[in-house]
Amino acid sequence: MTDTGTAAPIFSLQVDDHLMIAHSLQHDFFGPAQRLHGATLTIHASFERQGLDEHGVVMDIGEASQLLGQVLEPLRYQNLDEHPDFAEKFSTTEVIVHYVALQLAERLREGHGLRALTIEAEENPTARASVRLELSA
Amino acid sequence: MTDTGTAAPIFSLQVDDHLMIAHSLQHDFFGPAQRLHGATLTIHASFERQGLDEHGVVMDIGEASQLLGQVLEPLRYQNLDEHPDFAEKFSTTEVIVHYVALQLAERLREGHGLRALTIEAEENPTARASVRLELSA
Amino acid sequence: MTDTGTAAPIFSLQVDDHLMIAHSLQHDFFGPAQRLHGATLTIHASFERQGLDEHGVVMDIGEASQLLGQVLEPLRYQNLDEHPDFAEKFSTTEVIVHYVALQLAERLREGHGLRALTIEAEENPTARASVRLELSA
Amino acid sequence: MTDTGTAAPIFSLQVDDHLMIAHSLQHDFFGPAQRLHGATLTIHASFERQGLDEHGVVMDIGEASQLLGQVLEPLRYQNLDEHPDFAEKFSTTEVIVHYVALQLAERLREGHGLRALTIEAEENPTARASVRLELSA
Amino acid sequence: MTDTGTAAPIFSLQVDDHLMIAHSLQHDFFGPAQRLHGATLTIHASFERQGLDEHGVVMDIGEASQLLGQVLEPLRYQNLDEHPDFAEKFSTTEVIVHYVALQLAERLREGHGLRALTIEAEENPTARASVRLELSA
Amino acid sequence: MTDTGTAAPIFSLQVDDHLMIAHSLQHDFFGPAQRLHGATLTIHASFERQGLDEHGVVMDIGEASQLLGQVLEPLRYQNLDEHPDFAEKFSTTEVIVHYVALQLAERLREGHGLRALTIEAEENPTARASVRLELSA
Repeated sequence: MTDTGTAAPIFSLQVDDHLMIAHSLQHDFFGPAQRLHGATLTIHASFERQGLDEHGVVMDIGEASQLLGQVLEPLRYQNLDEHPDFAEKFSTTEVIVHYVALQLAERLREGHGLRALTIEAEENPTARASVRLELSA
Repeated sequence: MTDTGTAAPIFSLQVDDHLMIAHSLQHDFFGPAQRLHGATLTIHASFERQGLDEHGVVMDIGEASQLLGQVLEPLRYQNLDEHPDFAEKFSTTEVIVHYVALQLAERLREGHGLRALTIEAEENPTARASVRLELSA
Repeated sequence: MTDTGTAAPIFSLQVDDHLMIAHSLQHDFFGPAQRLHGATLTIHASFERQGLDEHGVVMDIGEASQLLGQVLEPLRYQNLDEHPDFAEKFSTTEVIVHYVALQLAERLREGHGLRALTIEAEENPTARASVRLELSA
Repeated sequence: MTDTGTAAPIFSLQVDDHLMIAHSLQHDFFGPAQRLHGATLTIHASFERQGLDEHGVVMDIGEASQLLGQVLEPLRYQNLDEHPDFAEKFSTTEVIVHYVALQLAERLREGHGLRALTIEAEENPTARASVRLELSA
Repeated sequence: MTDTGTAAPIFSLQVDDHLMIAHSLQHDFFGPAQRLHGATLTIHASFERQGLDEHGVVMDIGEASQLLGQVLEPLRYQNLDEHPDFAEKFSTTEVIVHYVALQLAERLREGHGLRALTIEAEENPTARASVRLELSA
Repeated sequence: MTDTGTAAPIFSLQVDDHLMIAHSLQHDFFGPAQRLHGATLTIHASFERQGLDEHGVVMDIGEASQLLGQVLEPLRYQNLDEHPDFAEKFSTTEVIVHYVALQLAERLREGHGLRALTIEAEENPTARASVRLELSA
């Protein structure tokens, strides 16, 4: 009844950070969020790996935090309405987590043996959005 | 090593609400919970979608909250021992989340393109239950 | 600019527990809470002392948890509408925290050197009530 | 060792809400926060009363939430740089909680018997600010 | 668009506990964590089942908590550097959650009908690790 | 009923950090905590000021975090049993928060206009201790 010997189980490591951004969502669909406002986005980044590396970890936790910080740095204290990567897009929480996940996937390209990546953002105390990217080994 | 171009990744949107109900669980199995008591159930409803809609969201967050509220409304401040939908059932947290999920799935029948729905309820600070319903697109 | 040498500073120790109760609040004032419903009350008990005892603590943390548990035990899984100590009272969260605080103060009568006691109860994710009792040394 | 019979103890009721605003803090002192950015401010409003009213509460919890909502409404989804009440001020979290507290105190002018009001805002997962206003009975 | 009638949905029950341990991670890779230090590990154990049992639950919540407690008991207030089960291993959070999961899977061998088990540990307010074990029915 | 015009209200700024330490509490009083074990201490540092400074803040939030970090740095990843400042003391959570508060008060000696300082440490998910130091202006 335990884990089969053949396949190593799936592990996850999760680290947190946060962003404070301004933006507006300019379409009737978004109601009062069409006005220029802002948000603190509390970010949870989960790194998923089948089995552990030789140090008994999913990846170095310091590196995980640092990579997440590198991806978030250019977004900190920004007005996303003026950020080129969000031009002609609605910078919804979903779009932001996707952007962060893709940027982080770029930086994880080599040698980490990760299987997937999930970025979740809490935009207020009662709502959050996330995306899960499969990574090719 | 990034996401394959062909399949859009899976996104989730989660919104919260809560219920305050009374009930009793009338079987020896439940020990002291056989007595009439109650619970605050903090509800987390997660809506899952492959890719995003034309507004860059899983679904309208206001609609998500409103649909969840509509499903929870008839349960608010109720004694589930007297609620017809829980007659001849044990109104455990698991049964309640299943009920909420099925009711919510009914209301999501058309046009949302959602893939799955998860309802989680925290019944006390150290315990929670959840259910995940696959939705046919 | 540091603490004056003469008076020891005020320390607090806080321990948690929880209750699951049923009740109704039978007066128009309470709207839908007039119906029999229930709540999980997450309890935070804070014990306050000027300076520390000979073991460098406010009080033994195990004893603090145990005393709180003794006070809560007779309320667990109860319908407060039928509990003699809440007869002819509205069993609001405020009244419950006061009751718990007074019961706990009784048990702290001797030898603890405590200055005050605060009982807080979270009744749902967005509301909580508390009371602070001064204790005579 | 219990509470003295003569003076009723101090009770608090706390309710939550949140705001999503944009602003900039235009002075060297604020470093990167000089740029237009934003924040989700999770608000905790605590109402303090000596003793309880005739319904066994600090005040009606629905009214507490409603009054807080009325005060927050004109700030929701706003750019505080353009809000007349924050002109020629730095709209720091401290200044915002003070503003909310003063507005709420105005609405509590009559008949509540409250002693004090505390407004706390969490601006990110690791920082919060608060202010406590004494109210004359 | 609802759940297909043929397959019961997946339910989870989650219970919490915590551990306070000392350890050192003796390899350059771990930087300052090479020194003897310690951690509070807040443990979330999730039990997963397709459908519910005859009492409308994933499993008895009291039994779930008790089994988790039994597994954690020999680790409480221990220096893992001296614990035989962690000899010649790095006792990382990932390795600890795996150990707890395997021990718990042993105790769930018969009659529970569970599908999978997830153990998550929060090691500090901004980091957590987890493992998911599939259980053969 | 509002704040009196004469005295500015009391503001607080709170910032968080955390420590991971090992220690043993060597006296029968501490039961199993006599063994060498460890803890993650989540630290909340609150800075209290009557009124705000010329920038509309209690103090610079970056400086608050930095000062707290400077005080915590020599304790990170330490075995407090071997730390000279805890020799011949029980390194309880209460003693640790007092130590952190006194160290922080030293660094706040000049020019901040603060009134008081509170250090709280959560040692596990159900227990925390704090101390409040009055600062002479």
